Amino acid sequence: MADPRFFRLSGPFRLDELAEMAGAEIVGDTENTFNDVRHLEDAGPTHVSFLDNKQYVDAFTKSGAGACIVRAEFAERAPRGMSLLITPEPYMAYARVASAFYPAAPDGHGISPSAHVDPRASIGANVRIMPGAVIFQGAEVGDNSIIGANAVIGHGCVIGTNCQINANAALSHCLIGDRVIVHHGVSIGQDGFGFASNADGHTKVPQLGRVIIEDDVEIGANTTIDRGAGPDTVIGAGTMIDNLVQIAHNVQIGRNCVIVSQVGISGSTKIGDFVVIGGQAGFTGHLEIGSGSQFAARSGVMRNVEPGSILGGAPAKPIREWMREIATLERLAKAKGTKITKTE
Amino acid sequence: MADPRFFRLSGPFRLDELAEMAGAEIVGDTENTFNDVRHLEDAGPTHVSFLDNKQYVDAFTKSGAGACIVRAEFAERAPRGMSLLITPEPYMAYARVASAFYPAAPDGHGISPSAHVDPRASIGANVRIMPGAVIFQGAEVGDNSIIGANAVIGHGCVIGTNCQINANAALSHCLIGDRVIVHHGVSIGQDGFGFASNADGHTKVPQLGRVIIEDDVEIGANTTIDRGAGPDTVIGAGTMIDNLVQIAHNVQIGRNCVIVSQVGISGSTKIGDFVVIGGQAGFTGHLEIGSGSQFAARSGVMRNVEPGSILGGAPAKPIREWMREIATLERLAKAKGTKITKTE
Amino acid sequence: MADPRFFRLSGPFRLDELAEMAGAEIVGDTENTFNDVRHLEDAGPTHVSFLDNKQYVDAFTKSGAGACIVRAEFAERAPRGMSLLITPEPYMAYARVASAFYPAAPDGHGISPSAHVDPRASIGANVRIMPGAVIFQGAEVGDNSIIGANAVIGHGCVIGTNCQINANAALSHCLIGDRVIVHHGVSIGQDGFGFASNADGHTKVPQLGRVIIEDDVEIGANTTIDRGAGPDTVIGAGTMIDNLVQIAHNVQIGRNCVIVSQVGISGSTKIGDFVVIGGQAGFTGHLEIGSGSQFAARSGVMRNVEPGSILGGAPAKPIREWMREIATLERLAKAKGTKITKTE
Repeated sequence: MADPRFFRLSGPFRLDELAEMAGAEIVGDTENTFNDVRHLEDAGPTHVSFLDNKQYVDAFTKSGAGACIVRAEFAERAPRGMSLLITPEPYMAYARVASAFYPAAPDGHGISPSAHVDPRASIGANVRIMPGAVIFQGAEVGDNSIIGANAVIGHGCVIGTNCQINANAALSHCLIGDRVIVHHGVSIGQDGFGFASNADGHTKVPQLGRVIIEDDVEIGANTTIDRGAGPDTVIGAGTMIDNLVQIAHNVQIGRNCVIVSQVGISGSTKIGDFVVIGGQAGFTGHLEIGSGSQFAARSGVMRNVEPGSILGGAPAKPIREWMREIATLERLAKAKGTKITKTE
Repeated sequence: MADPRFFRLSGPFRLDELAEMAGAEIVGDTENTFNDVRHLEDAGPTHVSFLDNKQYVDAFTKSGAGACIVRAEFAERAPRGMSLLITPEPYMAYARVASAFYPAAPDGHGISPSAHVDPRASIGANVRIMPGAVIFQGAEVGDNSIIGANAVIGHGCVIGTNCQINANAALSHCLIGDRVIVHHGVSIGQDGFGFASNADGHTKVPQLGRVIIEDDVEIGANTTIDRGAGPDTVIGAGTMIDNLVQIAHNVQIGRNCVIVSQVGISGSTKIGDFVVIGGQAGFTGHLEIGSGSQFAARSGVMRNVEPGSILGGAPAKPIREWMREIATLERLAKAKGTKITKTE
Repeated sequence: MADPRFFRLSGPFRLDELAEMAGAEIVGDTENTFNDVRHLEDAGPTHVSFLDNKQYVDAFTKSGAGACIVRAEFAERAPRGMSLLITPEPYMAYARVASAFYPAAPDGHGISPSAHVDPRASIGANVRIMPGAVIFQGAEVGDNSIIGANAVIGHGCVIGTNCQINANAALSHCLIGDRVIVHHGVSIGQDGFGFASNADGHTKVPQLGRVIIEDDVEIGANTTIDRGAGPDTVIGAGTMIDNLVQIAHNVQIGRNCVIVSQVGISGSTKIGDFVVIGGQAGFTGHLEIGSGSQFAARSGVMRNVEPGSILGGAPAKPIREWMREIATLERLAKAKGTKITKTE
């Protein structure tokens, strides 16, 4: 069971209730009840577990779990007496079941008397505003949203419904959709890095755009998203962004992308849908990155990328070419005394 | 027009007023008035636009902008009826004009009753202190400066005049000049990463220096600048620092440098004036980096660098050598079955 | 002398008192008193200095310092009249002496009336809670700990004794040992980056673990440490973490490691004891990294690593191999017109 200091266990749930959440078919007694999720190794008769990665088939065959979420192909290897929830997507189903046992919902709502909410801000129904949060005039917070302790919602910002803006996040110049999660320490909407330079130095160019964050986006801790210089910076619906990511002004990111920690995306680059970007990768500015493309961790992307490409290395290239270059250099370096013939 | 929830439009301005701001010569009727800035494609008869990058000459020749800031060489290609503001530095001139239409100035001043200002702090005239800001004893905030919501100004810190310290920034052990902008979530003045190590572990070495930030510096969101170990950490006047940059203890950065996002500069490295550092580059400690040098994104700099050098790669080397290495490896890897003759 | 706006000088101390702190043998008059630490070049008769790096022997022989902490081998090169504190570990001894002259202890304790402490939180003796700090219900703060301005201590978090949680840090779902230092803007305990994906998008998987931080850990500014997905994320005792480091869910780091700025460690990777990781290095997930291993800055680690290894490059390899590859490529690229014989 998860530490009760931090997580509130809900349930118990009957097998048929779990099947409905999971979108799974039942093998077993629908009236059996379960009171927690647990890994295969640790689970007992009142626990629900899951098997997604084939690597764990062995643990599955030995598990004491009362119920397990599995693909049909593994059903016959289940230990005797284990109830099954059969689905082609066990990890997705587990996500839903675990969310039912441990709902994210907070303990209540209301505006802390220690929060600072401008009377000209508009606050929806069932909103929770934690101590020390600051909400400026003209800001709007949608129904059921939570504003964390010491978070700052700037002048005119719009936060949709069912959002979580966590502790110490600082938002300005942004419009945020529904069900968006912004983790601790995120900075959104500050000036992009734009200036005109000459021999005397640098003169700031006003950054007159906004940050638009569509529905169901999650933004990791201490990530930074600058507002546009004129056009907006846009994060498409369903995109997941990890911690300490930098997104520069005018960047447009499509839907359902996955952007791992410490990635940096330079100004005006456009990224398609379902793009996956490994940790610490970097993109120069003004690129067009096709939908469905994938980038190994630490890729350094300097050119436009066709949809569906799989790249790695710096400068980034098709992953096989990158691998071959790594192998080639390794081989050459090991070939002690390699003879190099100069023709000129 | 920029979103009025976030930006306050000023003006209108007459062509001669704009010319004065821009330092430009006028072609057109000085009494024409203009009420906003707009890109070439979107501009109408009451808008001012600009042409800096030759790539947009075509858009310029077709633009409906009432006025455009351009270099003299393009004047004759202007569409009929367009007023011109002629200057050798159109982007710089645009920066000034756009700043006039959208002045950064806030809506007022005063100390929020929800701010926590120690009575032993010294607050200048026309200072604005937002809700939740904390200013400790002995701190000084200069005239016309703004301290953002939930920002923290530590014991004894000095902030100059006309500064902006934005939401959730945390400052300690620092002296900050005039017209400095510190964006959301910046951390300045914390202990440098210094300790004495032996087989039992690590013992903290007191970090007894400060952070000195000179005039006209801009520091991007969630950037970190450690205070010196004994000497100070110094950021020279006019230097522009992007988001998520790490500046370690005792680093000295010169004037008018440009440091792009996610760069890391290790302890005691000294960087000259007008140095430009691309994103995600890293510098080891105790280096001397000459003025006017430039570094490609993701450079890994491990040696001293002569003034005016242009480097790339990791370890960083002259950019042509780096490019040649990239091309060489590409060629070798593609040469399937390359014959390598071992002489030993 | 360190800037008195920021540092409180303690002392003076007698030579024998200093020797006891330093664990050093005395050469000189034990009754001599000293009132500050200073570098060799700047030190006068009432100052204590130290010589650790041989590079500074010359400065040592010319120094005006009243006392110097040195290894026995340099004792005879001391200038006439200089008292000596002889120890095999001068830098460690200096760390202790400097800490005595400049104790970190704050000016007092007590809970600021501007802090927001839930009555159901438990606050130890001599705790200092700064203005704007928020401490939620069920949280515990141990004796002598300091909670900085606008820091947030989430529901149920446990902070040990003699800790410093600095300004604008945000903590949730974590258990923190004794003598832990958390710098400005750190985010701890937020959701790990876990979700189940299919063609419709990504579904969040509840993150049900915690962050465990053992005793004597230091965590640099704006660093992020995600809580575990089910297992915990663990930082071992005595480990030093620099600024802007990313530590993902389920990562386990051993004791007394050193992790330099902007390093990223992906989910479920286990790192042994006394591991040293250079700046901007990255680790993929699910790795086992042996104790005592060391990684050059910018290493890209993609495989398990044996204890005691010294690696560099991306993909990381033994440092000599990496160096040889760098040299090989350099050589090949310079060999203009290198003849490459295709055998097929």
